Amino acid sequence: MTDAQVIDEELLERVKDSIEKRDRKHLMALIDELRPADLADLVEYLEPSERPFVFECLEPEGAGEVLVEIEPPVQERILHELDNQVITEIVQELDSDDAADLVGDLPAERAQAIMESVEDEVSKGLERLLPYPDDTAGGLMALEFVAVRDGATVQEAIETIRRKREEVENVYYLFVVDDADRLVGVVSLKDLVTEPPKRKIREIMNPEVISVGVEADQEEVASVVKKYNLVSIPVVDREQRLVGRITHDDVMDVIEKEASEDITLMAGVIRQEIAEESPAKISAARLPWLIAGLFGGILAAGVINQFESSLQKILALSFFFPVIMAMGGNTGTQAATVAVRGLATGDISLVNTGKRLWMELKVALMNGLVCGLILGLIVGVWLSDIYLGAIVSLSLVVIILNSGFIGTAVPLALKKLKIDPALATGPFVTTTNDIISLFIYLGLVTLFLKLRA
Amino acid sequence: MTDAQVIDEELLERVKDSIEKRDRKHLMALIDELRPADLADLVEYLEPSERPFVFECLEPEGAGEVLVEIEPPVQERILHELDNQVITEIVQELDSDDAADLVGDLPAERAQAIMESVEDEVSKGLERLLPYPDDTAGGLMALEFVAVRDGATVQEAIETIRRKREEVENVYYLFVVDDADRLVGVVSLKDLVTEPPKRKIREIMNPEVISVGVEADQEEVASVVKKYNLVSIPVVDREQRLVGRITHDDVMDVIEKEASEDITLMAGVIRQEIAEESPAKISAARLPWLIAGLFGGILAAGVINQFESSLQKILALSFFFPVIMAMGGNTGTQAATVAVRGLATGDISLVNTGKRLWMELKVALMNGLVCGLILGLIVGVWLSDIYLGAIVSLSLVVIILNSGFIGTAVPLALKKLKIDPALATGPFVTTTNDIISLFIYLGLVTLFLKLRA
Repeated sequence: MTDAQVIDEELLERVKDSIEKRDRKHLMALIDELRPADLADLVEYLEPSERPFVFECLEPEGAGEVLVEIEPPVQERILHELDNQVITEIVQELDSDDAADLVGDLPAERAQAIMESVEDEVSKGLERLLPYPDDTAGGLMALEFVAVRDGATVQEAIETIRRKREEVENVYYLFVVDDADRLVGVVSLKDLVTEPPKRKIREIMNPEVISVGVEADQEEVASVVKKYNLVSIPVVDREQRLVGRITHDDVMDVIEKEASEDITLMAGVIRQEIAEESPAKISAARLPWLIAGLFGGILAAGVINQFESSLQKILALSFFFPVIMAMGGNTGTQAATVAVRGLATGDISLVNTGKRLWMELKVALMNGLVCGLILGLIVGVWLSDIYLGAIVSLSLVVIILNSGFIGTAVPLALKKLKIDPALATGPFVTTTNDIISLFIYLGLVTLFLKLRA
Repeated sequence: MTDAQVIDEELLERVKDSIEKRDRKHLMALIDELRPADLADLVEYLEPSERPFVFECLEPEGAGEVLVEIEPPVQERILHELDNQVITEIVQELDSDDAADLVGDLPAERAQAIMESVEDEVSKGLERLLPYPDDTAGGLMALEFVAVRDGATVQEAIETIRRKREEVENVYYLFVVDDADRLVGVVSLKDLVTEPPKRKIREIMNPEVISVGVEADQEEVASVVKKYNLVSIPVVDREQRLVGRITHDDVMDVIEKEASEDITLMAGVIRQEIAEESPAKISAARLPWLIAGLFGGILAAGVINQFESSLQKILALSFFFPVIMAMGGNTGTQAATVAVRGLATGDISLVNTGKRLWMELKVALMNGLVCGLILGLIVGVWLSDIYLGAIVSLSLVVIILNSGFIGTAVPLALKKLKIDPALATGPFVTTTNDIISLFIYLGLVTLFLKLRA
């Protein structure tokens, strides 16, 4: 049995009903058993006007736990409805990283007001975390962690954990620092409980501790955590001093975010679109891709226009524009997808680019020969012109070779230029391939017609 | 500083050099400092003929740790080169889940031989794990975990951890079972170290433990772990008895695998392709998508053929085939991408499909009006026929509306039919959209030409 509660339509209807009736008691009875993540789902399914009442019914701590699980566009809308007093109470209950994310997303004026009204300790934490960009180690880290000096004993370390019990929700490793607060080792809780109380931490710690710098990109953080199967990773400043901790759940979010970003860049949609509720915003986000495709298509029309006389001779040549473009487009997308994913997961690095390109060319040649043969036969029979079929066949081989090359080379080149390679799977490369493919097809056929004439 | 070692070209060259000279001592000196995951990367960069020598130089435990980090196609090739004695030693050193994965991937005959030669305890574990499909909780779980009875004391629990110290590498939670081995609670190690030794586990455990059934799909496992921010999740059988544990690193792999699968299904490439070394296998995997596109394109040619007389009247109508297809294709891909990702991450559920479809139609109408206006103007000016421009404009609005609808409806319908919605982003939907778009464009224009005649 999975204990994950499923929000079904029946529960949703009953919740909506109790909100409409402003029946606080009934609503609480319905949602009392739900975990914060499930309640967050439920809130997302509600209409915007129904959501504030749910938060009015929750205690600050519970409200905070639910709020951080809600997708940003919906979260923003809810925060807009809540008053500063409620937000202040919520921020005080959150972990430092979640608090910083929440305050960082508020309009500057409101953020300032909240900063002034929270307790001193909370506002100090916010001041430390807010300067870091969201997509860096500093932006991901929390200030809640347990660290001890290397000279401490096991017993003293356990005392430290006991003192921080309430503040630090999850402790998996104990970080070890020297007298200058520099990170020098790590002890797993498993080792801590099984070692004698008088033993020195220095003797049981693992000095080969993996850490990330506070300015490291989130993609780098995720790849280090994933590669070495870590549960949490300490964050250090330039002097190697321990400043924070990033936990596995934040890393999982980053991995999923980065994967979604690759996918959505491919299609030209924004990642947060799923939870976005304004059609105008979605439209605005998608239009650049569409308009790029539109002008690419107009360029393609210009290319075709150059070959008008060939088309006038054999109108049926135009029948095959869709198949020519689809083949170039699909081949390019396949090659680009593998390159983009491989670069993202680290399975392709710039060390082995030559090997990758060579492999793609071999694959493109094979696929080109198979597809070229099929299309050549069909065109030859359709137009009762076996030579024309042969030249279409040849042009498809060239098109697939070219598209495979461009699809692989562009993401690799973008990576070298430190631009997100996922852009290569968008309409720009596809459109370029469309135009080149049409040029190859019409060019070779026209050359053939001229030679035959 | 990130302690992740980077495999640079210089190190790679020196390793290749020492392999060529069969210089075991030099090779060991070069790779001695590398962590298993880094050594795995290095091995993947080597030529197939160079790899076995590296494994000949490693101890069984080290060899096993490296082997499990290597991508399956390369791993398979290396296993093929190693003899049964070496594999037996490696299997004995691995955790039960990794051992089962490795043995499960061997040809049946070799797997049998290994099963017979490993120690009794290892072969018993393999017999328990091998029957579960790879993509279920049973296929992911390991048998190494720490569980205590609910009647035990904190002191006894710590003794249990001490006994299992070598066997269970990472302990984050202590699972609690009743006398019938049914899972009844969980204790974090943090709580364990901070509670008095005499206290009963029953009093400090959290009875609301989240678990998954042994037959649960890996996607479900990942979504539960992610949703509730777990580090590891206990696996139970139908009688709620504790049978295994899945850790966060395996879940991260699943999340990345599922995301990669979505992306690769979109493009029609296989997920493991990045590490695949046979161009023929890659070609075979990609050809179905290409050939589907090819025949779709031939169908499109058939559609165009039906409108030959319109094309003969105005040849320039064919110039706009690429732009018509690109617009339908891009719109459909955008809508499908959002639906597929939303379904995968759980942000779209079948509860709110109507809302999603309605949103997509509103977005499509906006985008259709913008793009239709631009294209209509260009066509009208180009062909000096403002009415023809208007009709092309109208047809683009209809095409974008249709593509947005199909792009959203198909993945939602596939999900309802329990088919992987990511298939909807492949060439089938794109090709369907291509054909319908051409039909709308040529149909409306032909109707207009007839009415005007």
